[in-house]
This record gives sequence, structure tokens and C-alpha cells, in this order.
Amino acid sequence: MEIWRINVRSKTFTREEVPADWRQLGGRGLLAKILLEEVNPVCHPLGPGNKLIFSPGLLVGHMLSSCDRISIGAKSPLTGGVKEANAGGSTGLILARLGIKALIVEDISEDSDWWIVHVGIGGVRFDPANDLIGLGVYESAQSLRERYGGKVAISLIGPGGEMCMAAAGIQNLDKDGVPSRIAARGGIGAVMGSKKIKAIIWDGTGADKPSLAHPQAYWEAQKNFTRLLLEQKTVQTYHDYGTAAMTMVCNAFGSLPVQNFSQGNSEDAEKISGELMREVILQRGGKANPTHACMAGCAIQCSNVYADSKGEEIVSPLEYETISLMGSNLGIFHLDDIARMNWDVNDLGLDSIEIGAALGVAAEAGLAEFGNSGSMMNLLAEIRKGSPLGRVLGNGAVVTGKVFGVLRVPAVKGQAMSGYEPRAIKGTGVTYATSPQGADHTSGLTIRAKVDHLDPKGQADLSRSAQINMAGFDTLGACIFSGSGFAAAPEAIRDLLNARYGWEVGTDILQVLGRATLSLEREFNRRAGFTPADDRLPEWMSMEPLPPHQSVFDVPNEDLDGVFNW
Amino acid sequence: MEIWRINVRSKTFTREEVPADWRQLGGRGLLAKILLEEVNPVCHPLGPGNKLIFSPGLLVGHMLSSCDRISIGAKSPLTGGVKEANAGGSTGLILARLGIKALIVEDISEDSDWWIVHVGIGGVRFDPANDLIGLGVYESAQSLRERYGGKVAISLIGPGGEMCMAAAGIQNLDKDGVPSRIAARGGIGAVMGSKKIKAIIWDGTGADKPSLAHPQAYWEAQKNFTRLLLEQKTVQTYHDYGTAAMTMVCNAFGSLPVQNFSQGNSEDAEKISGELMREVILQRGGKANPTHACMAGCAIQCSNVYADSKGEEIVSPLEYETISLMGSNLGIFHLDDIARMNWDVNDLGLDSIEIGAALGVAAEAGLAEFGNSGSMMNLLAEIRKGSPLGRVLGNGAVVTGKVFGVLRVPAVKGQAMSGYEPRAIKGTGVTYATSPQGADHTSGLTIRAKVDHLDPKGQADLSRSAQINMAGFDTLGACIFSGSGFAAAPEAIRDLLNARYGWEVGTDILQVLGRATLSLEREFNRRAGFTPADDRLPEWMSMEPLPPHQSVFDVPNEDLDGVFNW
Repeated sequence: MEIWRINVRSKTFTREEVPADWRQLGGRGLLAKILLEEVNPVCHPLGPGNKLIFSPGLLVGHMLSSCDRISIGAKSPLTGGVKEANAGGSTGLILARLGIKALIVEDISEDSDWWIVHVGIGGVRFDPANDLIGLGVYESAQSLRERYGGKVAISLIGPGGEMCMAAAGIQNLDKDGVPSRIAARGGIGAVMGSKKIKAIIWDGTGADKPSLAHPQAYWEAQKNFTRLLLEQKTVQTYHDYGTAAMTMVCNAFGSLPVQNFSQGNSEDAEKISGELMREVILQRGGKANPTHACMAGCAIQCSNVYADSKGEEIVSPLEYETISLMGSNLGIFHLDDIARMNWDVNDLGLDSIEIGAALGVAAEAGLAEFGNSGSMMNLLAEIRKGSPLGRVLGNGAVVTGKVFGVLRVPAVKGQAMSGYEPRAIKGTGVTYATSPQGADHTSGLTIRAKVDHLDPKGQADLSRSAQINMAGFDTLGACIFSGSGFAAAPEAIRDLLNARYGWEVGTDILQVLGRATLSLEREFNRRAGFTPADDRLPEWMSMEPLPPHQSVFDVPNEDLDGVFNW
Repeated sequence: MEIWRINVRSKTFTREEVPADWRQLGGRGLLAKILLEEVNPVCHPLGPGNKLIFSPGLLVGHMLSSCDRISIGAKSPLTGGVKEANAGGSTGLILARLGIKALIVEDISEDSDWWIVHVGIGGVRFDPANDLIGLGVYESAQSLRERYGGKVAISLIGPGGEMCMAAAGIQNLDKDGVPSRIAARGGIGAVMGSKKIKAIIWDGTGADKPSLAHPQAYWEAQKNFTRLLLEQKTVQTYHDYGTAAMTMVCNAFGSLPVQNFSQGNSEDAEKISGELMREVILQRGGKANPTHACMAGCAIQCSNVYADSKGEEIVSPLEYETISLMGSNLGIFHLDDIARMNWDVNDLGLDSIEIGAALGVAAEAGLAEFGNSGSMMNLLAEIRKGSPLGRVLGNGAVVTGKVFGVLRVPAVKGQAMSGYEPRAIKGTGVTYATSPQGADHTSGLTIRAKVDHLDPKGQADLSRSAQINMAGFDTLGACIFSGSGFAAAPEAIRDLLNARYGWEVGTDILQVLGRATLSLEREFNRRAGFTPADDRLPEWMSMEPLPPHQSVFDVPNEDLDGVFNW
């Protein structure tokens, strides 16, 4: 494999050998390594010093179930710290097949032209993109697929990324060519926009699967892993209901964000449940089964296609994070409304978590009305126009709170919390507080642990182990949902890696990778100026009791500061 | 003297003895001490945990020339760190006469009513202020003077503070009752707004001068100090031209901010010079001499009253910082235009430095046109309306840059630079970078030192000594311009303090106080999460050469990190 570099100022391209100490990393871990070695931690995230890096995880390239994710990273415009966001779809697979261990986009372009970067077996080419500027993600993707054919993978930004909004992500095509797989968090879409790249075309024509050191051993390990994965109960749940299964789970725990994180449950929760969603989809006979896969080869198939009453697709997929942040968090308990808002946010190329949180803060400031989806759609229209109000919202919940003087902002390190109330699921609160990524459930969700989630004791230990595992999975390119399979069989990761790369790693490789990744990330953040003062939930969450349990976040600071003592 | 405390939630008031280890501090030093002991450094600046503190400096109360300043502090909504802003006028004098060493305003009020706090010899009273809300500073002050009589001192906020804008300051009356003395920087007006206090009336009726331990010695020291002060050449310059004398000095050094800090000089500089301003004022026969005093007893009298061609006052005073930040920095080289914008910003109760910088960033984003004062006045009108755009601007240059994706933002620790380009006056650049207050010339201006200001060598030493002295002056309540008097006679400070308090301090007391103050401030910031990464100028200033010297900021990081090693 190789490292590819693109300079957007000179429009040049180089290929390099992989440095020896980068080889045992991939995905999130490799991003952290490269950022630490090559990016000045105090540089401006939208300036020439930042780099946008694409790296498939270590297991990517062989259509292992749920293990072909692409990690995209940069210094975050949202948090000012290290950032990795990952996505399913076809991007990771094609990078791995092109033999690209990491593609690093450098510098900024100061002319006014926009570009499409075509990446193929022969190298890199810059094609003009000015005609796509201002178009939404869906229309842009369609136009690009017409131009480059239906087999390419694409990473692209929408108007949000073009306007360098800190809530902008990078969309990727799913296996069916729909640009729905967003590497959403932390504003990496704004970094792509600052480099004047509208889209990257990943053209796998002529490329092969990555080589295997021990093919027979690999296939056996693969078979074993898939079998174990499908035996897991949670996998069946996600297969049937998608992530929306979490609505009623969270409501039961009192950890569903309601009305800008002012309540933890709602009597209307059933109206936005996964169970209801499944029924509705089946009734309406949309274009797909209740669930389908985002990546080729995925056995879980947690994705869905949500259609309106005439059977016309509104959005795909409709996920729990959007349902909670743009639904209950805004007092909206109608799946059709949420689906329409979701489409809009996707089309803008923005993170539905960050925007949902920003709209909640805006509603608190009186700019929209909780429960009134029309007023929320109006705010999304402001974002599309790029009006001053729209630009505030597009920069996320913290900026919105700052501009409008709202104190109840659910965010850590500048990044909004996702759909798990940290006062009710305190281990996840520890993750929000301490993750180098900023508040993010995918950095270490603890809700499935069999503990009293309201008891502050032991939550730091729970978060530590979840964070290590997740950093490991993100370095492998493995979806969070494959975790249950791997948890049941840690030897599967060892066997897959050893068979593919000819390594001799042990069963603790997941934790080895996770700890290495977290250490690199924390070092980057330390140099960027982060301290224990940044590893805290916002003050109001320790003062304002959350119904129904009237709980506050009370994990002691010493516990938070001990999370990374391993 | 005593410590007075007000709780705005319970509307209660207490008086306490001064704790022993607070006694040898006052003004800026005492604010830092109180913030460090009583305010959680990671609290929300607009939340119940923050405190707004008024403290006169150690020398305040006897109408020593230029030594009756009031220091006002809190955790800053702009920087997130420690904050002291000071002002002349009559506030400091009356606090000292009321025997108040510090008045501490605690908690927040969550009801919708606004209050006037009346502070007199008998204690504290809350009067309703709802009728003043939305009124500008000038109209509010007039109404308050009608209500409370012409002899009270007043600290008040304008619409900016009411809207909790992070660029909001607190205005104080000058000796003639004009609300022009703003403790401008760092958003302390927003803290006052968050506590729902529109104004504090400082009523000195029945109060006496602070007692003197050794009256005779005090009067001799005072006479000596005044004589020395008036002998200084710079004092004469400020007497004749006000701070506007700096326009041509900075232009000559190439350190005049022009068009959002993209140039260091301009062929139009003379049109905004102190020399021209003096001529214009004399010609137009405004209501005052070219200069007058802001505080009773001041021998320097640097202030002025700027009138229009009909002799009607436009604004008083018109100072260099406003001339540079709202003039040359916006490409505006017409004193009448600058004076009108200055009045508007004063009336809004906002910091003209922060707003000037924010308008420069906004112009860079295409929201106004450099050189077009009408387009800038339109933006000020947006602030008054409290529109989303106005709220962005009112939150300062960094938020404006973030929202509109502008990289060239002249700020450190979230606070905009003042009228000295740090690439041309590098010692002041070191001060901007490292001061615990954020970018601020009053924390340690170096332009008068006889050194090569373009040479990075030795600038850290220069800044260190300037920062120590200024922290000392701010703790004494002494105006920056009295510094030249004290510099010529450090024994004057010793003699004044010993005679007033019966202490036995030495001639190094200025530095002792300065170092103590800076150490307290840095400790607060450290706990708030500041690190050496925050002690840096923005990256672009080390890359983008500044005409006419084509200089970049190149003081090494090691020098910056050594500033506080004394």
C-alpha cells in the first residue's frame, strides 16, 4: 500500500511508501498519527496548515461484514482538536483496492475555482467543479454519477461544506449509489470546502483486492467472524429496526433528549419508535425492505428507506441519532416531519446531530418553536441561503448558544452531544466529557452495560473500556455494530489481521490499537491547548436535575481525570 | 474599608470585613484574587457561578492626578479567562469614599425584571429599571441623573450588555456627568446584563475621603508626584492631542492597523491624526477646550470633545484606539465619520476596539465595504436591532470570523487586538500573545521603548517589564499615562502607599504588585484550561508579511513561553 498526497494549491500529486511506523495503523489511529506528525496543532482548521486525510481501516478491502468503513480526519473546525469521522458506503473499499493506505490533501487553494479530484489506478486528476457549486448533495451526486459512471465511489460536500460551516460533513455513496453515508462530525466538510474540493471520485477500475499473506487462514477467520456476528441478539434487533430501536430503550432509561435536553423521556416517544417506523415502512411499501445494507457484504443491514404515504422515498436511512436530535430534542414526534428535515440536512451536507442540537438551542432563544416542524424547516432554509442566522446555525450548537446568549447548550469541546442524555447514562457522559473527539456516542457508548446508569460509581471504568474498544474498531474500519461479533470472539480480529498482513499480533490487538489511537489523539489535543478543564460536561448539567429521575451529572472530576490512566 | 456583596437572585446585601490577605491588593490585583478564590474557572461566564466585581485601586479616593480609576472584573464572556477592565470617571472615587474595597455581585436573576442597584452610605437598594431597557447609554444616563441627581456616579450598560453581547462594556460617568468612561474590554457588560442590572448608582452623599495613616507625609508625596508628572514630555503631548497623537506615531512605525490588519500604514493617515483633530476642534469651537479631564484632579487632561461643523458635539472623547480600529482598520479616514460611529458604539455600550475589529472581519467577508462608512453604520444598526447578524458582530471579531469563515482575525484568546500592529511593534505582539487578559495594549505597550521594534530579539523582556508595570498600575488605580510620572519617581508610589495605609513597602512595590497580579491571573486561566497554545498570535500573522516593512511576527515560541519566568 502507499501514501498518496495531493496539494490543492499547486494541483500536484505524489505517491510515497508507507513509513514503517505507520504500517500497523489504519483508519482513526493512522489519522491521529499523521495529524500529530504533520499538522501544527495550533493552526487554523480552515487554513493552509490543516490536512484532510482519508484512510481505510486495517480490515477494509475484503467486504468483511461491516468492516469496510472509511475514516476521514483533520484538525476539527468545530472542536479545534483532533478529528476522525467515519462512514460506511463504498469509499473505504475502493481506497483499499487502489492500494491507498492514506490520501492526504494538503494546503488551500486561494483562487475562486472549485475542483473535483479524480483518484484512479493511474493517479490523480483535477476536473472543474464550478457548475456544481450551490447544488445540494443529492443533485450533485447524481450529476457526478452521470459524469463518472455508476461504479465509482464518491466523497462529496454540500452547500454547508462549501460555506465552511463547522457542522459540515462529507457524504459518501452507499452500495446503491445513494450519497447518504456521511462522515458527519466535527466539521471535516468545512475543511474540504476550505480546500475548494467539491468531490473526490474514487475510481476502482482495474484495481484489485488487497493481497493476503495467508489466504486460507483469512477465509477461515472470515467465515468464523460472520457466523459469530449473526448469532448476536443485538444484530437481529438492528437488522429489523435499524438504530431507531434505541428510541424506546432510551425513553425507558430516561435518556432520550427532549426539548433541548431539558427532559429524559416523553409520553410521545412511541410515535418516533423503531417499532412504529418498521410498521410504517412495511405498510407504505417503500422501495426497500425495512432494512438494507450500506456496504457490500454487510450481514447486519441496519439501514432503511423511509417513504411517505404514497410510497415515495423521503430519506434513507432514518437513524436514531437524527430521530432523537431533530425529533424529540425539538419536540417533534412525527416521523414524516423528521424524515423531511433529515433529507434537508443531508442535502446540505451537514451533521444532523450538530444541527439538531443547534436548532434546539435556537428554539430556546425563541428563534423557532419546539414541536413546530415548520419553524424548524424555516431555520434549515436560512442555512441553505447562507444568511447570517443560517451561518450561525451551520456552525453548530456552541456558536448558536454564544451568539444568542443561551446557556443550556449540550456540548463538550465545542461538539454537540448525541442522543444519549449523559445525566441518565452517566458512563456515556464520561465518554462525552473525556473523548478527544468531543461529545460523541460512537467514541464509547455504555448503554448496553448491565449497570445502574444513574450511579456515578464505576462509570469512568466503563467509559474507559468502551473508548478503548471503539478507538480500536475505528482503526480497524469496523462498524460499531460489528463490535458485538468481535466481543464474542476477540481471536477473530487477531486471526484476520495475522492472515491478511502476516503479523503475529495477540488477542488483545483491539485494545492495543485503541490505546495507541487514544494516546496519539490526546497528545495532539494537548499540543492544541486542551487540558482537564476541557474534559468536563457543561456546568448546567451538574446543577439542573433531569426528569424523570431528577438526576444530575455527578461523576467526580477525579474519575474523569483518571479515564486515560491505564 | 469593607467588602460588600449583592445577591441578585435573593436581592440581598451583606457587608464584610476585608480578609487579611486581600488588604494589600486593590483594583486589578484584588479582582484576580477574588476570582481565583470564589469563581469556578470553568463556570459559564453568563451563569450563576460568575461574579461581577468592582474594586477601586489602592491609590483611589484622594483625587491624585490620574489615579482614581475603577477596575471591574469577572470571568470574561469573550476570552473565557480572567478579566479586568478599568475606567476613569467618578466611579472609583465614590466607591473608595463609601469605604468599599470591593463590591461583589453574585448569582443571576431568572425573572424577567431589570434592576437599578443604588449603593449609598446606608447600604444597597434595588430599584426597578424596566423602563430603561432598550434605551441607549446616553439616554439612560440622562434619565438616571434626573432620577438620582447630578452628583452620583453611575455604572451602566447599553443594549449590547442587555443582549449579553461579549463585546459589551460598562460605561461610567466622567466628572462632568457624561457616560463616556467605558470599562470596555472582555464583555463585562454582558455579565452585568446576565445579572439583570441595568445600572449601579454610586451615591457618595455623606461619605468621606478615605483616612490617611500619615496625612502630612501623604500631602508631600502627592505634591512631589504631581510635579514630576507634569514635567514629563509625553504628558504634554497627551494634554494637547489626546491619545490621537498616536496616529502619526504608529503610521511612522508602520504599525497602524489598516483594512483589517492587512497594512501597517496609509498615505491618508494625516486625515485621522491627532494634529488635524486638534485643529478641527479649535476651528469648530466645540463645547470644550481641545482637551479636558475625565477624572477630578487629573493634571493630564487627555480627553477631548469632538464637534461637527456647526459646533455641535458628536462624541467625547475621540480616542486613538477608536480612530485606528473603527477608522484606518475599516479604511475610513474621515474624523467626522469615525466620531459618529464612535457615538453609536458608545450608545450601544460596546467596546469600540472589539467592534471595530469585528467590522473589519465582516468587511473581509463581504458584509460591508472598506472605506464606506455608511455600510459600517448599517452593521451598527444591525447590532442595535439585535438581528442575528448584529448579535454575531456584537459577540466580537472571533465569533464573526468563525461564523463567516474568515481566517484573518486579529485576536488572541478570543479578544481583538488594539491599534498597534504586532508585526511592526513586536514587543506589544508579545503582550497580545501572552497577557492573561487577551490581546490588549493596556496590558503592556512597548512602543515608547527605544529599540528596533521589528527585531524579534529582546521583545519578550520588554513585554515582561511592561506587563508587570501595567498590572501594578491597574492595581493602584493609576491611569496608564501617570506611568511616566511614576517611572521618573518610583519612590512616589512607595511614599503614597506608606503614608496612606501605614505600610512599609519599598520602591519595588509597583513590580511586587504587578507580579502578584499576573501570577493570580495566570493561575485562574490555567484552571480555566489555558495553556501555552493560547499564548500565541494567530497563525496568519507569522505567515503574511505586513507592508510597509514586509514583516511577520517571528518572536520565537520559547521567548513567549518565558515571559512569566521572573
